[in-house]
Amino acid sequence: MTRSVDLNADMGEGFGPWTMGDDEGLLDIVTSVNVACGMHAGDWDVMERTFASASARNLGLGAHPGFPDLQGFGRRRIDLAAASIGNLVAYQVGAARGIAAKTGSEIRHVKLHGALANMASEDEALARVCYEAALAVAPEIIVMVMAGTAQQSAAAALGCRVACEIFADRAYTDDATLVDRTEPGAVIRAPQRAARRVVDMIEAGAILSESGKRIPTRIDTVCLHGDTPAAVSMARAVREGLAAAGIGLAPFPGTPL
Amino acid sequence: MTRSVDLNADMGEGFGPWTMGDDEGLLDIVTSVNVACGMHAGDWDVMERTFASASARNLGLGAHPGFPDLQGFGRRRIDLAAASIGNLVAYQVGAARGIAAKTGSEIRHVKLHGALANMASEDEALARVCYEAALAVAPEIIVMVMAGTAQQSAAAALGCRVACEIFADRAYTDDATLVDRTEPGAVIRAPQRAARRVVDMIEAGAILSESGKRIPTRIDTVCLHGDTPAAVSMARAVREGLAAAGIGLAPFPGTPL
Amino acid sequence: MTRSVDLNADMGEGFGPWTMGDDEGLLDIVTSVNVACGMHAGDWDVMERTFASASARNLGLGAHPGFPDLQGFGRRRIDLAAASIGNLVAYQVGAARGIAAKTGSEIRHVKLHGALANMASEDEALARVCYEAALAVAPEIIVMVMAGTAQQSAAAALGCRVACEIFADRAYTDDATLVDRTEPGAVIRAPQRAARRVVDMIEAGAILSESGKRIPTRIDTVCLHGDTPAAVSMARAVREGLAAAGIGLAPFPGTPL
Amino acid sequence: MTRSVDLNADMGEGFGPWTMGDDEGLLDIVTSVNVACGMHAGDWDVMERTFASASARNLGLGAHPGFPDLQGFGRRRIDLAAASIGNLVAYQVGAARGIAAKTGSEIRHVKLHGALANMASEDEALARVCYEAALAVAPEIIVMVMAGTAQQSAAAALGCRVACEIFADRAYTDDATLVDRTEPGAVIRAPQRAARRVVDMIEAGAILSESGKRIPTRIDTVCLHGDTPAAVSMARAVREGLAAAGIGLAPFPGTPL
Repeated sequence: MTRSVDLNADMGEGFGPWTMGDDEGLLDIVTSVNVACGMHAGDWDVMERTFASASARNLGLGAHPGFPDLQGFGRRRIDLAAASIGNLVAYQVGAARGIAAKTGSEIRHVKLHGALANMASEDEALARVCYEAALAVAPEIIVMVMAGTAQQSAAAALGCRVACEIFADRAYTDDATLVDRTEPGAVIRAPQRAARRVVDMIEAGAILSESGKRIPTRIDTVCLHGDTPAAVSMARAVREGLAAAGIGLAPFPGTPL
Repeated sequence: MTRSVDLNADMGEGFGPWTMGDDEGLLDIVTSVNVACGMHAGDWDVMERTFASASARNLGLGAHPGFPDLQGFGRRRIDLAAASIGNLVAYQVGAARGIAAKTGSEIRHVKLHGALANMASEDEALARVCYEAALAVAPEIIVMVMAGTAQQSAAAALGCRVACEIFADRAYTDDATLVDRTEPGAVIRAPQRAARRVVDMIEAGAILSESGKRIPTRIDTVCLHGDTPAAVSMARAVREGLAAAGIGLAPFPGTPL
Repeated sequence: MTRSVDLNADMGEGFGPWTMGDDEGLLDIVTSVNVACGMHAGDWDVMERTFASASARNLGLGAHPGFPDLQGFGRRRIDLAAASIGNLVAYQVGAARGIAAKTGSEIRHVKLHGALANMASEDEALARVCYEAALAVAPEIIVMVMAGTAQQSAAAALGCRVACEIFADRAYTDDATLVDRTEPGAVIRAPQRAARRVVDMIEAGAILSESGKRIPTRIDTVCLHGDTPAAVSMARAVREGLAAAGIGLAPFPGTPL
Repeated sequence: MTRSVDLNADMGEGFGPWTMGDDEGLLDIVTSVNVACGMHAGDWDVMERTFASASARNLGLGAHPGFPDLQGFGRRRIDLAAASIGNLVAYQVGAARGIAAKTGSEIRHVKLHGALANMASEDEALARVCYEAALAVAPEIIVMVMAGTAQQSAAAALGCRVACEIFADRAYTDDATLVDRTEPGAVIRAPQRAARRVVDMIEAGAILSESGKRIPTRIDTVCLHGDTPAAVSMARAVREGLAAAGIGLAPFPGTPL
């Protein structure tokens, strides 16, 4: 039996004249991209360029909705009502589909960004609101969830298409959420260590937390961040580590849980 | 032969806590609505409420994209590159489709707003960029054009579905564009006078300019503005004027030109 | 001895084409105004008009900084770092001083808005960050605080000029904060009842909570809200109630606590 | 007689997570900085950091107001009414003074940005509106003008403190405005060539246009752009070129014209 996994990265995180990360470098490493939708990053032009580049390489295209907070890059919690969050997700998924269509491509998946993702990973009802909104816009869309969290249980309950994601460069708590960025050790910066962890988790079929806890989960995709200077070398190390371990690369199939 | 015409109004022009116009009053008069898409007015929540209200009455739903300028309500010209304008339209049409889908409804037409509409009414290449963008997102969308302008010729050249629009309350120049709002007489405020003009133009099959020029055109829909205090009584007068003249009301069919 | 109190209201809460409340009606009732600074409401033009109108009536002018959230009207909590909040307050107080100067007038006080005000009423350190920022910009500025809360203790510790405020139309908890708007009874809508409460609190020299608790405090100013339809009649009732009770009207002196 | 000139650069052009240019590199080369005020770039945190860094080096601090257009970086013309532009400038100068005060420093000059600067360089009435607004906020502020343009005549007519500026890296038309960025040769990229031009213009006491025209003017400061990758080496070349030609560096005195 051959195992394979998808590699995804956030892209299109510039805005107007400002750029972030090495999108071109990552495009040759990943198999799926999550594109910011204009609220926490990205604008209609950045989105158009990013979808065009990614679809030219036959990558899986994703909408990456976040909070309306450019200055905070969508990483600050905002106390939005759940119904408003549902509308916010529908708006962004629709906008992403609009821009993708303009480039002759289609949105295949949706992944929540930043504080919105973290909140949904802790609150199944909120995750459900987000996913129902995305599915109302695009019934065949694959919901990318943070494996082991309330995001995953929400998607499982909906019976929709799902991709379970682990993070290459972020430490995990014992409830499968990410250690807060402001804490020491939250972000793993050594490429070899990140690569080793990813292979270990895929071989274990489980998330491995900082404390050593083993949280069993399906793993469909690995998130490689693109906004740090060393992102490309990190991504390459993970890709090489997977190859060395005999794990192939392929876009996630999106099978329901 | 029975003549009929559509009545359309801009709606969903609130933002956050701010409201504009009497949407509920107009919903019972018009047959189509043009809903702001979050750039010059409207937000994801206002859009959701507006699409839900309009689709509950079986009205034709339209996306109403404009410039990204809340403070100026999309009425100030911004020197955006044409390619960026295309992306901006695709973004907004996509977003509108997303929110409409969340309410179980569908976008049927697209109409440009404010300064963007005025620029496209003078510049066929720009109108084409806008309409191609909308059609890339939604190939069956009906393009609502200001009758007799470069908007109409752009849509005719594309061969797409079209609705030709006249304005009930705006004076016309001899090239079928609108007299600038800042000029005296640009906005007609007397309901009976507006109603009379609309019937005259439909019976003439032509736009009638301030100077008395007759500009022949197909007329599929009449725009009733919703942002003035007297909007509802104006709209009612036009509707009654049409009935008195034996002109029926029906959503535009969207036949290509 | 003659007692007197100031009446303040939030104003300039429009944005671009959108208006809110009856500023003109309130201007003839209050003695001080708190003007939104462009982040949760207000823009440079609305601010200019509001400062010009208020200074023509010799009212006390205040900056009313809030979170950067037009759609949420600054009423949603945003998880901003304290240092960033300090900068945000300095930015808005500076901008308000700029626009006021353009109208030939001066900012006399500062009052926090919405969610930012609520957070500062619960967190003395955060209140201090806000007030230190305002005082760095304008050392003589009078800090208007929600009487009895952490806002008041922060201002007392700074030794700055202070005005202690009670709300005419909001119910109080036992720790002198406002009952959340989403709870029943949080907003008092009967003008006579609001007027009676204000007189009672001034005569008691104390905030009177929903449960009947008496929280002694200096009372320098009474907040009249301007964003509800009935705001002007509410405001007039309070003003008349004060007169009937022999309590005069005068801008707060800003004496330190 | 010793000649000297000021070197200025735009700074603080990041926004939220996005950076632009090498501010730290430029801070050791220039004598004055122009700091974006949150409308076309910059936010309250970026402003605070930039003012703190620049004032620690005793540089002259400037407010750099622009159009409210982050995506377009203030480089797109927006058809704002003149009165609104005046308010917009007052808002930004006030905000900059607020943030500067928080860092214990003061704004010494104001310089218009991007499309607003270009419009004001062509339209003396518009330039006057901008400068009157800035002077209403800060009567002692030094107005930095594009030498030889309508900006300069507006400032001369006002009798205010002035600094006349030439650009090191931009080609000039025969009416002393900048060749449009979209035209070939508009931006000079060779550091030695830029340095040579600056020395030539200072020695000539004139702007030298592309066509070879000599436009006499006082020259108080030289603009070094900071948003291109090669900005620091360009800036260093100009500084060295000035030293080699015996021209000293000093902040502009701001003498009226």
